[in-house]
Amino acid sequence: MKNYSIAKSRRIRSTPYTSRIEKQGVTSYTVYNHMLLPAAFGSIEDSYYHLKKDVQVWDVAAERQVEISGKDSAKLVQLMTCRDLSKSRIGRCYYCPIIDDAGNLVNDPVVLKLAEDKWWISIADSDVIFFAKGLASGNKFEVNIFEPNVDIIAVQGPKSFDLMEEIFGEMIRKLKFFGFSYFTFKGAEHLIARSGWSKQGGFEIYVEDTKSGLDLYDHLFEVGKDFNVKPGCPNLIERIESGLLSYGNDFDNNDNPFECGFEKYVNLDSDIVFLGKEKLKKIKLEGIKKRLMGVEIETDNIGLSGSVEITNEEGNLIGDLRSACYSPHFKKVIGIAMIKEPFCKASETGKLEIEGKTLSVKVCDLPFI
Amino acid sequence: MKNYSIAKSRRIRSTPYTSRIEKQGVTSYTVYNHMLLPAAFGSIEDSYYHLKKDVQVWDVAAERQVEISGKDSAKLVQLMTCRDLSKSRIGRCYYCPIIDDAGNLVNDPVVLKLAEDKWWISIADSDVIFFAKGLASGNKFEVNIFEPNVDIIAVQGPKSFDLMEEIFGEMIRKLKFFGFSYFTFKGAEHLIARSGWSKQGGFEIYVEDTKSGLDLYDHLFEVGKDFNVKPGCPNLIERIESGLLSYGNDFDNNDNPFECGFEKYVNLDSDIVFLGKEKLKKIKLEGIKKRLMGVEIETDNIGLSGSVEITNEEGNLIGDLRSACYSPHFKKVIGIAMIKEPFCKASETGKLEIEGKTLSVKVCDLPFI
Repeated sequence: MKNYSIAKSRRIRSTPYTSRIEKQGVTSYTVYNHMLLPAAFGSIEDSYYHLKKDVQVWDVAAERQVEISGKDSAKLVQLMTCRDLSKSRIGRCYYCPIIDDAGNLVNDPVVLKLAEDKWWISIADSDVIFFAKGLASGNKFEVNIFEPNVDIIAVQGPKSFDLMEEIFGEMIRKLKFFGFSYFTFKGAEHLIARSGWSKQGGFEIYVEDTKSGLDLYDHLFEVGKDFNVKPGCPNLIERIESGLLSYGNDFDNNDNPFECGFEKYVNLDSDIVFLGKEKLKKIKLEGIKKRLMGVEIETDNIGLSGSVEITNEEGNLIGDLRSACYSPHFKKVIGIAMIKEPFCKASETGKLEIEGKTLSVKVCDLPFI
Repeated sequence: MKNYSIAKSRRIRSTPYTSRIEKQGVTSYTVYNHMLLPAAFGSIEDSYYHLKKDVQVWDVAAERQVEISGKDSAKLVQLMTCRDLSKSRIGRCYYCPIIDDAGNLVNDPVVLKLAEDKWWISIADSDVIFFAKGLASGNKFEVNIFEPNVDIIAVQGPKSFDLMEEIFGEMIRKLKFFGFSYFTFKGAEHLIARSGWSKQGGFEIYVEDTKSGLDLYDHLFEVGKDFNVKPGCPNLIERIESGLLSYGNDFDNNDNPFECGFEKYVNLDSDIVFLGKEKLKKIKLEGIKKRLMGVEIETDNIGLSGSVEITNEEGNLIGDLRSACYSPHFKKVIGIAMIKEPFCKASETGKLEIEGKTLSVKVCDLPFI
């Protein structure tokens, strides 16, 4: 695909780290929660190999937080998600599909329980803040909802543990997956979670003190020299191979959690109250009509800017491709597609047309690796 | 500023017209409502002169619609805006600030009344659909809320009237400003409003029938040859000179409508029910602490990617610059800034720093022209 430049403006917010990543060689941006999110530092394939071997520091400030606090905050957070949070604990992260009245997805954030009456919703790319404000107003909840000044730095890759230990001491290794705690850097406290948008291991540092965060960003690169640290960003190849789904890419407000493989986060049997609960019960009973699946495509490169229809040999529409990349691991293009019943089973075949070429498609299970 | 490429994906949706504008020479995109919005076809200054003289066709599909229909639709639409819609008429557009419980802005859409129980909210860049869904759920309103398949083509510029008359007949000239009606092209009906995001006159065609819309897009360029038609997009220079405000750029969810000069759309005296009404009454009584103003900056080019602080001679922070461009008309950079009391009056002076340069700033009234 031809390259087009991104027009910057205040509406597409820069992050505190933008001037740094521009010196470090960022070449491409996407926009996420009205903010710049780096999409490439040169070759995505080189970055993929590096991420799987060493350690990267990512500017993911675009993962914005919605802070919900106050008397009814737990009630509101539960109302928005089909995941049972009644036994949730302070200091833990929870992957929580956000659901509307129709049982469809609004977002798939990680929810951090900071206190019994204080939560951060670490959102994917949609304005959950306005959904929360609308619900709070309509239900007359006593809550305070706002976007706090939090700009996440992610440290990802197998050597992230060594690098973070150098800076924060061995206690950082004790963090369990999706646990978080507070660590001090140059006098400022930072919430650090063992999490991140790759399957290569790592941490996310929720920076509230921008000055300390900028110093920390620089320090990560200084100390990181010993671990071959590089700047990076969520990597298209790594996330597709790992089956990490992306709201807006792989699913959106027209899809429900069962269609996206989120069954284990849909708790219909307890007495918790959340939007779309009855709808989801009905959907579960009746069964779904489409499902996210992996696909293998016989070609060596692809660029998507929207859905691409997949048809079978008989010419019937069997689904649509939503994300795709060339996988160095599989030596072919792999992708994530919403496939209709009864075609959503591994080894089903079809074809798609892109840039005038017809390519053969094979359906497979997720995740790829 | 250096150029960075935009990473395309399904999450940053293409429009039905994207392949056409890419053949026609679009050079730069922004992202608006999770969709590609063209930001430049080569020189913005050349495009500015052309827009003020001839006619342009714009792909503004990114101006998405939120359709609200059903028994309680009028109640919900009114609940979201401080503008009194009790006397609103079918076939008219209404510029309506959308307000949250705190009295702050959520969006500043144009609302189209399609029927007593059917509305389109033609939104600026925030997910009003989730605000509406949250409110509807919390208030148990009987409404249906979704994003319809509408992809707007704007026809803007002084010769837009001649061009549109050639295609739709002289009835199109009878449309009053912010009125809309239905016009047929190749068998499909299109809602056409006399509106658009420039002050050069023109129309917006709300395309629901994509096939007919694509034919119409091509036809506009064929017929338009006689009027020196060119592809274009909302023009940064024209919109700042004209004082057309942009949600996310000039104001956001931290600002209230009085601070943005929207007084005439804030109807506090009737008995309509809307969010933040008591807050806005209080704000009106107590007076505002900041206000959007124009600024003139002594330099010949500027590129913004966020707010820039403005200080006065004593070193006090007096406000922040939010949008700016070089104006060929004024032969200097002009901009829109949120200026604090008591500095928000014309001829107040200050300075700002950008890319290591200190520039002098003079506050002035809006609009510039």
